[in-house]
Amino acid sequence: MPNSPPFDLATLAALLDAELVGDPSIKINALTTLKTASSGDLSFYHNPRYYSDLSGTKASAVILSKSQAENYSGNKLISDNPYICYAQASHLFMLEPSQEKAIATSANIHSSANLGNNIILGENVVIAENASLGNNVTVAANTVIEANVEIGEASRIDSNVCIAHGVKIGKRAHIYAGVVIGSDGFGFAQEDGKYIKIAQLGSVIIGDDVEIGANTCIDRGALDDTVIGNGVKIDNQVQIAHNVDIGEDTVICGCSAIAGSVKIGRNCVIAGAVGIINHVEIADRVTVTAMSLVNQSIKKPGSYSSGTGLSTTQEWKRNIVRFRQLDKLAKRSNQDN
Amino acid sequence: MPNSPPFDLATLAALLDAELVGDPSIKINALTTLKTASSGDLSFYHNPRYYSDLSGTKASAVILSKSQAENYSGNKLISDNPYICYAQASHLFMLEPSQEKAIATSANIHSSANLGNNIILGENVVIAENASLGNNVTVAANTVIEANVEIGEASRIDSNVCIAHGVKIGKRAHIYAGVVIGSDGFGFAQEDGKYIKIAQLGSVIIGDDVEIGANTCIDRGALDDTVIGNGVKIDNQVQIAHNVDIGEDTVICGCSAIAGSVKIGRNCVIAGAVGIINHVEIADRVTVTAMSLVNQSIKKPGSYSSGTGLSTTQEWKRNIVRFRQLDKLAKRSNQDN
Amino acid sequence: MPNSPPFDLATLAALLDAELVGDPSIKINALTTLKTASSGDLSFYHNPRYYSDLSGTKASAVILSKSQAENYSGNKLISDNPYICYAQASHLFMLEPSQEKAIATSANIHSSANLGNNIILGENVVIAENASLGNNVTVAANTVIEANVEIGEASRIDSNVCIAHGVKIGKRAHIYAGVVIGSDGFGFAQEDGKYIKIAQLGSVIIGDDVEIGANTCIDRGALDDTVIGNGVKIDNQVQIAHNVDIGEDTVICGCSAIAGSVKIGRNCVIAGAVGIINHVEIADRVTVTAMSLVNQSIKKPGSYSSGTGLSTTQEWKRNIVRFRQLDKLAKRSNQDN
Repeated sequence: MPNSPPFDLATLAALLDAELVGDPSIKINALTTLKTASSGDLSFYHNPRYYSDLSGTKASAVILSKSQAENYSGNKLISDNPYICYAQASHLFMLEPSQEKAIATSANIHSSANLGNNIILGENVVIAENASLGNNVTVAANTVIEANVEIGEASRIDSNVCIAHGVKIGKRAHIYAGVVIGSDGFGFAQEDGKYIKIAQLGSVIIGDDVEIGANTCIDRGALDDTVIGNGVKIDNQVQIAHNVDIGEDTVICGCSAIAGSVKIGRNCVIAGAVGIINHVEIADRVTVTAMSLVNQSIKKPGSYSSGTGLSTTQEWKRNIVRFRQLDKLAKRSNQDN
Repeated sequence: MPNSPPFDLATLAALLDAELVGDPSIKINALTTLKTASSGDLSFYHNPRYYSDLSGTKASAVILSKSQAENYSGNKLISDNPYICYAQASHLFMLEPSQEKAIATSANIHSSANLGNNIILGENVVIAENASLGNNVTVAANTVIEANVEIGEASRIDSNVCIAHGVKIGKRAHIYAGVVIGSDGFGFAQEDGKYIKIAQLGSVIIGDDVEIGANTCIDRGALDDTVIGNGVKIDNQVQIAHNVDIGEDTVICGCSAIAGSVKIGRNCVIAGAVGIINHVEIADRVTVTAMSLVNQSIKKPGSYSSGTGLSTTQEWKRNIVRFRQLDKLAKRSNQDN
Repeated sequence: MPNSPPFDLATLAALLDAELVGDPSIKINALTTLKTASSGDLSFYHNPRYYSDLSGTKASAVILSKSQAENYSGNKLISDNPYICYAQASHLFMLEPSQEKAIATSANIHSSANLGNNIILGENVVIAENASLGNNVTVAANTVIEANVEIGEASRIDSNVCIAHGVKIGKRAHIYAGVVIGSDGFGFAQEDGKYIKIAQLGSVIIGDDVEIGANTCIDRGALDDTVIGNGVKIDNQVQIAHNVDIGEDTVICGCSAIAGSVKIGRNCVIAGAVGIINHVEIADRVTVTAMSLVNQSIKKPGSYSSGTGLSTTQEWKRNIVRFRQLDKLAKRSNQDN
């Protein structure tokens, strides 16, 4: 079977383990949204938000569920879970330029570094002493891998990343551009109004199948290590302070700020721009909605929020005056009753 | 006319299209604030906040409006819009060290790349296959331009930037240091508690006259592209997720986080540290004030806010207890009436 | 006396100026937490949160206060301030790989740059014209130091940093990976819905003993300089806009966003993810708690907060409806009385 577009629809049905209804010989060149699709495109239907796009789509075929199949008369691939089917299809249509299978001559590799087979290193990559890269690791241009770092097989590190000394990264990780892993935690002891730096002796230990988004920072631990579990997915510009411990298969969306020694359970979803204060513990299967501040531990699964919701600025100005009087208002109301 | 300081005041009046009242031959060396000005400096008056600085300034000349001119007896440049006049003057006094007109020998340019005339490339710049740079493009040291990127004429890319494969940037863009454009959007399908990555097949399309601040990230689209309109100004450390669409001449201030598929209109002002949840649509000419969460679409122009305003921590602790009781309090109050 | 582990306990007592009670000859290899300690480790007790770990620790010695010493029967180092004693001890156990005392051959140093003695420059470092580095300055791989920058003695700049032209940094600074200092402030004048860039003519002046965390940005001033006082400690991903002025020994935690022309006093603590709107002035010795928005000047020392505190999302949805009605509710309540 071919492994790059175009595919005929029968091939796609086989690759995606989906039921084909329609013309098996039709050629599919690309994967697109229902709305933007044209002839030769495969699309998918999953989110009721886009239901109105389904009937009018010009896609040559659509991935959808058995229950939705009757709503669409064109060529279709029927799947138990159309969104997962789409996720699988997406990789068949990925045309990322293949990096040349080579180590750039401008890469700087310390003689004591230990490189596996089939390594790709971009221009100006720096691999310091005793660093160890497993088989099939890719490191893009201008990234710095410091001393004693270990990176597991098939991991991919994008451009302009810094992995500081001694950090350990598992297999199949994807570290995006601009990430900093293993810089010092923010630890000081105060004496007479001056701050004395505490050397950060721990490291960062990252499991398998982890994604870390662009310009995210993960600090090394003060004494123990900062720990990111298997399967954790972290978005862009997230800040993870020293000694944080994140459980397996937890998702952390963009711009969240997680303070020191926070412990987050498994299968949590921390939405975007959330703040979590230091030493908080969060149970498994907790969702925190966007831009909430977690200022206490969360002991039960469920969804948690803070904030006021949006108003016009004019209304808001009146309401925040009242917020500052809220305790007085409540006390008076209690007296009335 | 000279194009760098010192200027005589008559030359400045001509260059800035302002009315000169005072000594045309006085020499102006620098542009400063009213408060810090000394002899030989030009300053400007625009913001009533600084009115008290006007009378005491030691500036040799001041830019101000006709209506304010009578309040100042020194040499002056009278302009219909003193702030715009100041903006124009600022470029005359910019003494940024000129980059040498050359391509550094350590720059690494793929043989298939297409470079216009008068290109400047700093040390260790990487230009990958089929990348295309228009005339007068400047790329500073240690920046990576991946395959198939297109950058329009007279655009400037600062140091340590990563522009990922296939991204298109218009003319006269200014991309600041540490920016990442075109890394993968944060898209996963969940199956049995595990996350399956969705390949991000879209790109990022950036219009003309766009500024993108330091360490900002703009993700590539899942299927369609992420789109930044002409004239958009984005500050530092902004996160723009996949498939966001930002209308022309909209301003986004520092540290704002914009989730997936958000659509923002034209001529909006998104203040600092704002969060916008996914799929929200915002009309033209909307202002969102600092650190607000936009958790619903905004259909009318105007100013919108969220948050509580600031209190002492002691008062705040009492009020947030009451906030959690607010629904009960309101119900009881309703019953009383 | 030895300056790297193992130490005997008597040596540590002397180095740390602590009172030894127990076996002076015991060998100490590492510094760990009470909980994870094993034989050969030194630990410390300071935070009552960890009191239960003290009795069960397997550490070979513990740093603690005179008043706590009676609660622990093992070998101990008694100190007036155990946390400061720990901070001092941490540096004795730091095993960061020593950078080779050398200038990498791939570093690119302009002939007009002025380098002190005992400088270390990593691979692909760029030092531009007229830059000046004091004695004992270290610059890690792939960092760019632009023209006319001055860096004081014993300062350390990590990887992938950009210090823009003309920035001045004091002595003993530590600038972490991915930092951008001196990029243009976000300044525009609006005319007919379009934005005209204001050239940013100021610089950034950073005092002595300053730490600046990973991926933090500090913009250059519009006319005057942005100023960071002596002893200021800034965490990761902080945004400091043009013309901000931060007083000595103030601490700014991760992800805080400080808008233009803000003035913060001395000995303040700005917690994580705080926002401060432009032109605000904050007195000395002010604490702002996590994720608060400072939308007005703070004139008195003390602790300040905003936000609602956390609820379940279900309760929160009811309460934010009421928040939007708060002014009406309060007015009605006032009428009732």
